[in-house]
Amino acid sequence: MDNIPKIGITMGDAAGIGPDIIVDAWRKISQRVPCQPLVYGHPEILRRAAQLRLAPTGQTLEIRTIHALRELDSMTDLPSPGAIPCLFCCNDNVKDVPPGQIDARAGEAAFQAINAAIDDAMEHHLDAVVTAPIHKEALNLAGHHYPGHTEIFASRCGKDDFAMMLYLGADEPSETASHRGSLAPGGLAVVHVTLHTAMRTIFDLITVDSVLAKARLADHFMQKIMAQNSLGSTPPKPRIGVCSLNPHAGENGLFGREEIEVIRPAIEKAQREGLNIQGPFPADTIMIDAKNGHYDAVVAMFHDQGHIALKLLDMQRAVNVTLGLPMIRTSVAHGTAFDRAWQGTAESGSLFEAVRVAAKLALNRT
Amino acid sequence: MDNIPKIGITMGDAAGIGPDIIVDAWRKISQRVPCQPLVYGHPEILRRAAQLRLAPTGQTLEIRTIHALRELDSMTDLPSPGAIPCLFCCNDNVKDVPPGQIDARAGEAAFQAINAAIDDAMEHHLDAVVTAPIHKEALNLAGHHYPGHTEIFASRCGKDDFAMMLYLGADEPSETASHRGSLAPGGLAVVHVTLHTAMRTIFDLITVDSVLAKARLADHFMQKIMAQNSLGSTPPKPRIGVCSLNPHAGENGLFGREEIEVIRPAIEKAQREGLNIQGPFPADTIMIDAKNGHYDAVVAMFHDQGHIALKLLDMQRAVNVTLGLPMIRTSVAHGTAFDRAWQGTAESGSLFEAVRVAAKLALNRT
Repeated sequence: MDNIPKIGITMGDAAGIGPDIIVDAWRKISQRVPCQPLVYGHPEILRRAAQLRLAPTGQTLEIRTIHALRELDSMTDLPSPGAIPCLFCCNDNVKDVPPGQIDARAGEAAFQAINAAIDDAMEHHLDAVVTAPIHKEALNLAGHHYPGHTEIFASRCGKDDFAMMLYLGADEPSETASHRGSLAPGGLAVVHVTLHTAMRTIFDLITVDSVLAKARLADHFMQKIMAQNSLGSTPPKPRIGVCSLNPHAGENGLFGREEIEVIRPAIEKAQREGLNIQGPFPADTIMIDAKNGHYDAVVAMFHDQGHIALKLLDMQRAVNVTLGLPMIRTSVAHGTAFDRAWQGTAESGSLFEAVRVAAKLALNRT
Repeated sequence: MDNIPKIGITMGDAAGIGPDIIVDAWRKISQRVPCQPLVYGHPEILRRAAQLRLAPTGQTLEIRTIHALRELDSMTDLPSPGAIPCLFCCNDNVKDVPPGQIDARAGEAAFQAINAAIDDAMEHHLDAVVTAPIHKEALNLAGHHYPGHTEIFASRCGKDDFAMMLYLGADEPSETASHRGSLAPGGLAVVHVTLHTAMRTIFDLITVDSVLAKARLADHFMQKIMAQNSLGSTPPKPRIGVCSLNPHAGENGLFGREEIEVIRPAIEKAQREGLNIQGPFPADTIMIDAKNGHYDAVVAMFHDQGHIALKLLDMQRAVNVTLGLPMIRTSVAHGTAFDRAWQGTAESGSLFEAVRVAAKLALNRT
């Protein structure tokens, strides 16, 4: 078990679909991803989710409580499709949280699980962290004021220069995928210059430095992904496209000047650094070109540009990857889905993909 | 010929792909759309485009110059897949415009053709106008300061309460379509609250009144489209979804308050008027639901929300429809594509669809 990566999956908000998708994806993860997964959360909640999801199928899933990561090392029967090791690392009162509602206890427990996983990863006991969805309002109610998951990681790791990236692998598109295998062989990465912030605030955040920083992160990430597919000895050169902020790329200044004053200078700087980067192009045309395999990575200016595209291309397999952290962290690309929580029917494809990508990155690192 | 609609196709910017897509689509339009099409532009340019496009195929296409719409009535051999009637309505110097470059002469000629078609439609000689792409900078260079095509129509018709809608029919998806027929049977309409404007300016333009106005227009349009598919006697109730402005619909005010203060009140007002309307929902989830047929129309807050989605769903068939004008007007959903102009290879699917939708609306009106 020493040579496969240990991957910690945080349970997410207990009122949401996190526990459901973890128990649903477990068998497939155990059988198809070379890793030792474990869950950070509350074992009782996982047990309930397993009962709800698996009872109709006749399958069983043991939830094995542990209190420290090192206990795993003595469990020689793991990894197993029939047993989830769960590191009990949150307040017990999260047990009483009702389904589908914003609750400070769920926010607190989710926060505790994230922190426990970050601690283990910082001490290099854990090779990657995969996060199930949290509800930001519940987090806020619990007194933790972060705009999102990613910012918790960045703050705990003392990093400013991080980015959340959406990634879609090119292999095994889901049945509802739209891209039909025409993506570039290494898949498609979309990195956002601004993300979980009001649209009114994005204009101050889009700067030459922030665009350049995201372009570098996208380039670095796709180099690693593409190196695994590459047979040659020359390092891969990811093809990066940069979205405009304004419609029609501003029509040469008629609809806004950020393309001329900010985005183009950032691209020219990145080109001088040797990046294979082009733009700014209108987001609606760049995403079509990416769908057709003409880009390995796209730099988007704000949340919806990237998320609308990647979810339409393959909702069930889009994965979040946090770049610029001293650890590997991936996440599902969907939310807590309170309206579909605790019905035993949530779609777990994005969680499976998040674990698969985390394992790929961890294996590449070691 | 009296009982089929007359549809005027404006040539667009002569340096762009307009002439090329017109000659390419002509045969299919003549054979498959019940209408009498004609072109507003310069016959010599069309002749050159036909030569470029059709010479390799051995086909020929006669360009028949007319100087007034009424001349059509005596041409009993029309409509014909072998002959384009072209209403010569622009300066002759557009002949000298080089391909793929911004040129005031092309802007002026495009403007003249649009105005000639609008005049004929205002006098009810023409049943619909379909526009090929113009270049807004060329238009500006020629002294016509409009943010886009649509605003020319609105201004000439004296209308403020117009909207540009993207429409994607559900029938005959193209080979590269992503939606695979799971759209609602009447197709999907996306209407934009703001469109050809700098992103910095959208916040003042998104008001309770503007959101409500666009919702009404979307409802009205889809009622007409759905009535053609409906067999029952009760009028159809289009299902309308409204996008949020901010990521995650603002997370209950954490990332912006427009959802709470503007968009939700507008939706509630529309519901009191009897519209079947829901939201605001995050744009990235609403577009997935629309793809799966759960909405007949979507109200988007800005350009990229709607355009990224509809182009990814079926780039080649997305069509623009202008709502709120005293005439029917549709348009291709792409630009002048200067980089691909005058190569005889431009894709004409959107133009064909624009003519098809215009004819459908015209037949429904008469």
